[in-house]
Amino acid sequence: MSKRTDIRLAALRAKMKETGTGLVAIAPGSHMDWILGFHPHPDERPCLLLIAPQQQAFLMPALNAEGSREHTDITFFNWSDADGPRAALQQALAAIGAEAPGSVVLDETMRADFALLLLDALPKETGRIFTETTLGALRMRKDGGEYEALKMNAAINDRAMQKAFATVRVGMTEEELAAEIRAHFSSEGAEAAFWIVGAGPNGAFPHHATSDRVIADGDAVVIDIGGRKDGFPSDMTRMAVVGRPPEGYVEIHAIVERAVQAALAAAKPGVRAREIDAAARDVITAAGYGEYFVHRTGHGLGIDIHEPPYITSTSETVLDEGMVFSIEPGIYLPGRFGIRLEEIVILRETGPEILSELPRDLHVARG
Amino acid sequence: MSKRTDIRLAALRAKMKETGTGLVAIAPGSHMDWILGFHPHPDERPCLLLIAPQQQAFLMPALNAEGSREHTDITFFNWSDADGPRAALQQALAAIGAEAPGSVVLDETMRADFALLLLDALPKETGRIFTETTLGALRMRKDGGEYEALKMNAAINDRAMQKAFATVRVGMTEEELAAEIRAHFSSEGAEAAFWIVGAGPNGAFPHHATSDRVIADGDAVVIDIGGRKDGFPSDMTRMAVVGRPPEGYVEIHAIVERAVQAALAAAKPGVRAREIDAAARDVITAAGYGEYFVHRTGHGLGIDIHEPPYITSTSETVLDEGMVFSIEPGIYLPGRFGIRLEEIVILRETGPEILSELPRDLHVARG
Repeated sequence: MSKRTDIRLAALRAKMKETGTGLVAIAPGSHMDWILGFHPHPDERPCLLLIAPQQQAFLMPALNAEGSREHTDITFFNWSDADGPRAALQQALAAIGAEAPGSVVLDETMRADFALLLLDALPKETGRIFTETTLGALRMRKDGGEYEALKMNAAINDRAMQKAFATVRVGMTEEELAAEIRAHFSSEGAEAAFWIVGAGPNGAFPHHATSDRVIADGDAVVIDIGGRKDGFPSDMTRMAVVGRPPEGYVEIHAIVERAVQAALAAAKPGVRAREIDAAARDVITAAGYGEYFVHRTGHGLGIDIHEPPYITSTSETVLDEGMVFSIEPGIYLPGRFGIRLEEIVILRETGPEILSELPRDLHVARG
Repeated sequence: MSKRTDIRLAALRAKMKETGTGLVAIAPGSHMDWILGFHPHPDERPCLLLIAPQQQAFLMPALNAEGSREHTDITFFNWSDADGPRAALQQALAAIGAEAPGSVVLDETMRADFALLLLDALPKETGRIFTETTLGALRMRKDGGEYEALKMNAAINDRAMQKAFATVRVGMTEEELAAEIRAHFSSEGAEAAFWIVGAGPNGAFPHHATSDRVIADGDAVVIDIGGRKDGFPSDMTRMAVVGRPPEGYVEIHAIVERAVQAALAAAKPGVRAREIDAAARDVITAAGYGEYFVHRTGHGLGIDIHEPPYITSTSETVLDEGMVFSIEPGIYLPGRFGIRLEEIVILRETGPEILSELPRDLHVARG
């Protein structure tokens, strides 16, 4: 195994000890990437990395065994499409002494059928929790290599956004603008990970699915985009208006900007996530728009675009140096427009360092 | 609700009655697409379509409510990032009379945390199964519109494969060839869904992750690709060799071709899936390569690239008119090469209709 895998497995086992966890079960996905630096092809075939206090094993679909063997020397318990995974799973659990682990940590992102296959193979009284106090807690703190990869992706995202600003015009559709953004990611060797282009009233849907709406004169356009290169993503939201901003736009943009600044000012090691949310939310509520800020203030960013820490109004998570998360308050006025401004920050001893170098000002394009 | 949604909900409720199911729970994904023609943005926020024998409800993250309202008139039980989903879930279950449903059908693809949130909200003795006897059984039979969409996607895939054949040459990497294939999908308004380009020994990994390996003279290249347009995918595998085929290649290609033909001949309404697998496997086993055919013969194709029916050596599923599935035997020789030939067929009264119009012959490119 790689040195990084050894270090991360040791850190995970220390957390398992702290939390009295007898087994951690991880499916192909970002948790597995974090530990092993790879994951087998994910599909409907149960595939689980099983980590016990002393040993580990892999429940492996036979057709992925050869390809996965290049990446890891963990013992595989292969199963064929003909036989199904049950017997191999029992053998794997026995081999690592985890037939009755007392409690199991489940990768919360795994498919329901994987999770229930495993739970049905364990004693009924087995406690189960998700990863928030073990793997999730470890993944919140980024190391230098992760920070560099995120910073590089943020720079690509800045340029993709500048491309969007240069391209947006009356008469093009949201989807046409998104295509230009995707092409920019591609031109830098990145994969376009997601693209929300919400023009006019569509901007009032925080998770608007980019559509064939034609961008009209006076539309405020929410542009929330991210790419992925070298295993890490980016995520940023900026606002453009084509032509003359709609009534009330400029004042509300300024309110959201003040909310971002308040959250940035509140973000210091040692504060609770809810305090950052409150800083942003208080600004918006005081301005009379509290009911139109319909989501949390932010989310962590690492291998996943959404991961802990979540910056919600109820989260007691204490923020620490090295954590990376978004600050993205918004105001959504149904039938009119939405405004969201989003930064990704890494928390430093002295406060947040913003990964983007692009101002949060409104970009006004020719109508 | 749309007429199609009404019809499909009624069909699902008939299956619920047949199977004594008190609740069906569906997460954002292909099952939801099949019923509603849309799904809310999927992320870590629990979102569930809950279907009881008489009524239905939607557990909905508040920030997706406005955007989802455009697509459905099902009652939403919204929850905010601050409050979390538990209370809204209880209210939703109560509203549709499903607080103690007796048994629940879970969407097997939903996240483990969604599934356990729901199971923890139901009485401990609630029976649970996945969708194979209800929604999964319904989705196996395609209607005319689905068939047309799959046929159109297969035609695009044929042209992407022809582009690959025209492009492949010594000195390019697997990834460079894959980029040409993705560009072709893009040029036809389709999204590239997956691309396995496995050259030389890499072809012996059925799920090889397309790499920077430089294609060498005499490499056999497995090209297994699919795109997606209008909500439906394609999936096809063909073989190319650059220069002179490696030793033994031509004979083994002919064996795999005979296995495909045997499976096609066995595919008739009324046969069991295992009989089709056996037809292909018997050919390969008789030729002495049984141990190198390491996967099932096929899988269904619909909204998902892998869905029921699975054509395995143990499946008792009875195949019926209107089912769509792959036939894709392969022989994988570690350290040497792999050969897989894959067709997608729709099962007609008289037998399988192949969606592709591209021959399964070896494509030999200039060395």
